[in-house]
Amino acid sequence: MSSEIIHVLGAGLVGPLMAIYLARKGFQVNLLERRPDMRQTGVSGGRSINLAITARGWKSLEEVGLKEAVSAISIPMKGRMVHDIEGNTSLQPYSQNPGEVIYAASRGLLNIMLLNEAEKYPNIRVVFDRRCTSFDPDKNRLTLQDETGEHTEEIETKTVIAADGAWSAVRKEMLARVENFNYSQSFLDYGYKELVIPPDAQGQFQMEPHALHIWPRKRYMMIALPNTEGSFTVTLFYPYEGKDSFAQLRTREAVAEFFNQVFPDAVPLMPTLQEDFFANPTGALVTVKCSPWHIDGKSLLIGDAAHAIVPFFAQGMNSGFEDCAMLNSLITDSHPDWGTVFDTFTRLRKPNADAIADMAVENFIEMRDSVTDPHFLLKKQVGFELEKRWPGKFIPRYSMVVFRPDIPYADAKQRGSLQDDILEQLCADITSPEEVDWALAERLLLGAEPVPV
Amino acid sequence: MSSEIIHVLGAGLVGPLMAIYLARKGFQVNLLERRPDMRQTGVSGGRSINLAITARGWKSLEEVGLKEAVSAISIPMKGRMVHDIEGNTSLQPYSQNPGEVIYAASRGLLNIMLLNEAEKYPNIRVVFDRRCTSFDPDKNRLTLQDETGEHTEEIETKTVIAADGAWSAVRKEMLARVENFNYSQSFLDYGYKELVIPPDAQGQFQMEPHALHIWPRKRYMMIALPNTEGSFTVTLFYPYEGKDSFAQLRTREAVAEFFNQVFPDAVPLMPTLQEDFFANPTGALVTVKCSPWHIDGKSLLIGDAAHAIVPFFAQGMNSGFEDCAMLNSLITDSHPDWGTVFDTFTRLRKPNADAIADMAVENFIEMRDSVTDPHFLLKKQVGFELEKRWPGKFIPRYSMVVFRPDIPYADAKQRGSLQDDILEQLCADITSPEEVDWALAERLLLGAEPVPV
Repeated sequence: MSSEIIHVLGAGLVGPLMAIYLARKGFQVNLLERRPDMRQTGVSGGRSINLAITARGWKSLEEVGLKEAVSAISIPMKGRMVHDIEGNTSLQPYSQNPGEVIYAASRGLLNIMLLNEAEKYPNIRVVFDRRCTSFDPDKNRLTLQDETGEHTEEIETKTVIAADGAWSAVRKEMLARVENFNYSQSFLDYGYKELVIPPDAQGQFQMEPHALHIWPRKRYMMIALPNTEGSFTVTLFYPYEGKDSFAQLRTREAVAEFFNQVFPDAVPLMPTLQEDFFANPTGALVTVKCSPWHIDGKSLLIGDAAHAIVPFFAQGMNSGFEDCAMLNSLITDSHPDWGTVFDTFTRLRKPNADAIADMAVENFIEMRDSVTDPHFLLKKQVGFELEKRWPGKFIPRYSMVVFRPDIPYADAKQRGSLQDDILEQLCADITSPEEVDWALAERLLLGAEPVPV
Repeated sequence: MSSEIIHVLGAGLVGPLMAIYLARKGFQVNLLERRPDMRQTGVSGGRSINLAITARGWKSLEEVGLKEAVSAISIPMKGRMVHDIEGNTSLQPYSQNPGEVIYAASRGLLNIMLLNEAEKYPNIRVVFDRRCTSFDPDKNRLTLQDETGEHTEEIETKTVIAADGAWSAVRKEMLARVENFNYSQSFLDYGYKELVIPPDAQGQFQMEPHALHIWPRKRYMMIALPNTEGSFTVTLFYPYEGKDSFAQLRTREAVAEFFNQVFPDAVPLMPTLQEDFFANPTGALVTVKCSPWHIDGKSLLIGDAAHAIVPFFAQGMNSGFEDCAMLNSLITDSHPDWGTVFDTFTRLRKPNADAIADMAVENFIEMRDSVTDPHFLLKKQVGFELEKRWPGKFIPRYSMVVFRPDIPYADAKQRGSLQDDILEQLCADITSPEEVDWALAERLLLGAEPVPV
């Protein structure tokens, strides 16, 4: 395969990983990124976004030999640390099984590590400051422009893999060109604002580092994830409009009053709250779905370009990394028939992408509201008990999505819904796990329709 | 209001009607159409598409004084004439109430009538061959181009109403410009092909004219609507791909064999079947949803531009005409505050547009499959009986959508779903209406949650 050139668009997280997979197969890879090199310019806008790596992501990182290096820059989080309005905290573990934790990592550090790794491969060429402005599949022609817009370049290419993110240039072309292209972009009525809890004077974490902190407030919430240098990246998810909304927070005084009222324990930890609030933009939360994902076996969308999702299941990057692993294995099976590779990828992957998109939207309600609901917590406890008593027969939905890469997202969703029916039946008239009718539980679990694992 | 100029985009069916409503209020209206004048060029491509006018459409036509004139070019259809594979036919009436029928009309004739009417108003100026290429709401600037693309014109305008169809130029601008614009375009896996049953040698109809003919074949169907000059416009709705699909009908022989096999009674009536099949394009079936529908009270989408739907409930034009009536009445209430007019329109109308979009997709299954299902037919009969015994308490869903403009689409959908639950209960274990437990029916109907009418 070594003479075949593949153009990968986007040097965010997914693009470099895909480039590495392809390079390991012997392809010549051109990795094109519209922004300048973040290793020279610093992370854009000084924002220290972080994210959670879960099992699906680790599986891909391991396949390309990066698991150990990435582990060194990530922090295990064993559960949700829920902060109530009085500042009391309680830990809700993600799992009862040892080792089932998720890992916080800095998006910027991870990106740099992937870029550095990509550049170690002699058959990967990374080019920055090249924006794709069009792709013409009839002429196999990719048009690129530099940031100034002054220089335009046309490249002949037979195979393009577009990992160019939620606002993908290639997908935009498909919307304009491809007949009967199914497309949806759907925004939540919420925006997000990134804030920070810095390290203390001794450079130490000001809160428990091994947890994902949540301040659930029913209609909205704030969260915080630890960074290796002792800080937390904080994110407020809040309605754009209405009574409690960004539209009401127009002054420093209004911001101070709001935070003091609803997140009183966090305020003393956030010395730059008001500055950050007005310096940082309000981000949008979008779900993008589309089909088909490819044009005639010539260009394929992967990652956010194919399926942008909201962040509430921490599966944006993880699902993108899983895309790379799956595509890699389909190339092994069917290369050089790219039509079959891309068709099969779309057919197998699309239902799973749709499933995680929907579950991610649902999980917002779980995080901002349900985690304080006694009935929800009871069901969680009973779920753990079912998992313990009938291992393999019951796996909490969260665990299937986050810790079980062997279970496709669509199966996790379907099985999760059947399991939830069982939990509802078992918990309908009780208030503690001790009251569960375990004989009924067994009948329901073992008698349930066979579900895919 | 007389000095205020409003630009209406699109001189299809909805644009001219909206222009007439506005002219009757005293506005100066510029009605801009990208195509040349169809009265001079003939209907595009020689296609004789027709459509069904139902009560929502008539209500608007009556308000602008066009009911009588349009009646003269339309043909009442009192039910579905179902053709089985042996050529046997049976009529399924749309309603049991006198006068509740739908009306077939030629799209071209209706369009010409609306254009002629619009031009009677001295304060409407109709300009053809003007394609909107952009609308800049910040500068209140509409850019227009003629068909050759050689002449570009910029117009200052404060108020644009875009009735420019399913592929609206203004909506395209909104997709590119408006932050957090929610948008979806969703295609059925089916295409449609228009064909024709001409009049016989004496110029007479070759089938019953006062019916909508259906050849339901489970996964697909063919329909026919009468035209005033004695012909029928025939439409085949058929999958694009797969075993039974357009992809398989590549030769005249294949087409002849297919039609002889599944529509044997229609073939002798269609002398130009094979020519038409290959001369006419295969059309797509798309549902478009979006929000918001307006930019800052400056431009508003109406009709297909705001909510393109599939044709299976015959509500595309009818819902567009209803848009015009509602917008007209909101202008009466709130003009000159266009922000309030457009906001209120979007808020009140969007849930109804979504409801008819979903019901139209559902109705495809009813037309191609359910109409041959004994259980479906039993429920229809029982529904008519419930309507007779408890008038006002039970109204068949079809009737609510098609004959009751006083019931918004969303209410029809919600109420239809509750009624369907009742019908399912009443018809679960019976095979004829005589077996219905009418005491149970009364309890269910009168005990049902209060539903909006």
